[in-house]
Amino acid sequence: METVAIIGVGLIGGSIGLAARRRGLCGRVVGIGRDQTRLRKARGLGAVTAMTTSIEEGVRDADLVVVCTPVDCISQHVLRAAASCRRPALITDVGSTKAAIVAEVERALNSSVSFVGSHPLAGSDKSGVAFARDDLFDGRAVVVTPTRRTRPGDVRRIKEFWSGLGARISTMTPQAHDKAVAATSHLPHIVAAALAANTPERWLHLVAGGWLDTTRVAAADVELWAQILLHNRKNVLHALGLHQEAMEVFAQALIRGNKKELLRLLAAGQRRRNALGS
Amino acid sequence: METVAIIGVGLIGGSIGLAARRRGLCGRVVGIGRDQTRLRKARGLGAVTAMTTSIEEGVRDADLVVVCTPVDCISQHVLRAAASCRRPALITDVGSTKAAIVAEVERALNSSVSFVGSHPLAGSDKSGVAFARDDLFDGRAVVVTPTRRTRPGDVRRIKEFWSGLGARISTMTPQAHDKAVAATSHLPHIVAAALAANTPERWLHLVAGGWLDTTRVAAADVELWAQILLHNRKNVLHALGLHQEAMEVFAQALIRGNKKELLRLLAAGQRRRNALGS
Repeated sequence: METVAIIGVGLIGGSIGLAARRRGLCGRVVGIGRDQTRLRKARGLGAVTAMTTSIEEGVRDADLVVVCTPVDCISQHVLRAAASCRRPALITDVGSTKAAIVAEVERALNSSVSFVGSHPLAGSDKSGVAFARDDLFDGRAVVVTPTRRTRPGDVRRIKEFWSGLGARISTMTPQAHDKAVAATSHLPHIVAAALAANTPERWLHLVAGGWLDTTRVAAADVELWAQILLHNRKNVLHALGLHQEAMEVFAQALIRGNKKELLRLLAAGQRRRNALGS
Repeated sequence: METVAIIGVGLIGGSIGLAARRRGLCGRVVGIGRDQTRLRKARGLGAVTAMTTSIEEGVRDADLVVVCTPVDCISQHVLRAAASCRRPALITDVGSTKAAIVAEVERALNSSVSFVGSHPLAGSDKSGVAFARDDLFDGRAVVVTPTRRTRPGDVRRIKEFWSGLGARISTMTPQAHDKAVAATSHLPHIVAAALAANTPERWLHLVAGGWLDTTRVAAADVELWAQILLHNRKNVLHALGLHQEAMEVFAQALIRGNKKELLRLLAAGQRRRNALGS
């Protein structure tokens, strides 16, 4: 690839630029955004080699366009990019939800330009290009979400791109992806926010590692997260309902003073948690 | 102080020994436990200078006894130590709950030996002396929980001991302590366990930083935690009820697609979380 264009150069977009350059995946990285100051910062950090506030101009010579804007804007940015970039350019995104975005894009996309949805599971409670890292995707999961309309060759190219950045790839339908991340990401976010918000201020001096870990993601950008939760609200509500039931089972074990049941519930959590690293 | 005796030399007990020795707070640290192998390991790591499986023998010459056993055993260990140690020895503990332990001890304690309850908020999802660290208490909160029966001079000595290990001290009644940690520690633990247990195994390859942080404490020792939750079940159930209500408010905002309300809820969590470090 000669040129990669990145629309939205924050933590994820900036890290894609840094990683692509470090690994020599492309010659040029064009950063596209609304804010000149932030674009200059991205260039200063080496995340992009060129910059523009015009999507049309920025994508013109791109072989690959990666849309890294908030989920509410992604489909329109993909479509604007598609209208300006030359074939055989490929477009992908990094949105945390996939079904609505992919459906909106496929409904409107001229078939001569290719789009494949992606979701690198590599966010953090931090945002902004200042936190971008060239190793953000090393060993991290990226879900690629082709549909029946996606050409196999395009899926392969997008997978190669993410593998080239160090990620391990999963392929899922947009719907299956959204269902999974409702449980693995969106529900934990709501739980963290609710826990943090409802800890009385007078007790904050008593929090320790457990509280700090459990609530960490609540520090993330609230506008981005409100969009994500609303995009995926059906699946999130389902996951939230199951969580409410699980908490009620805990409550019943406590009410009854049933230690055997409490041990069973705690052990189930411990087993699943230990299946992964710290 | 010449001699500190530690009953139960795991993560916390071992760290007390390491920190007390590093800071020169005492000449000898006697480790008391049931398991010779673990005691030898503690001595090998420098957490204790002497070891015994007999509480009676181990506390005999102690100026301070610190009981670091699971909460279900603490009051009986305090009372056994009190029966064998010489005045003016002082006894404290490190239990994660305080009201039941302090009440049980005060009900039975001969007034010639002094007990002051403590709770260093410095646990982790790890357990065992292998994870002990001589800086575990640096800057961490330790709650000291005197009652109307506690002599002011004894409270002062216990506070000095914990300050000497690098901790910052809060003083609360046992009841106020238990109410606070139900919200800051015990509820997050249940939430983490429920989240981990209810994430379907087929989606575990998709978890990222948010899930890993939010569920981390679920890896902790389940027997210790079942005891803690049952000790404090009235307060934990109260905190759990408030959390369920907060989650229901989130659910309603999602059902209605009310973005303004979602932003308000997420911002409340973000604000409280940002009041503390990462």
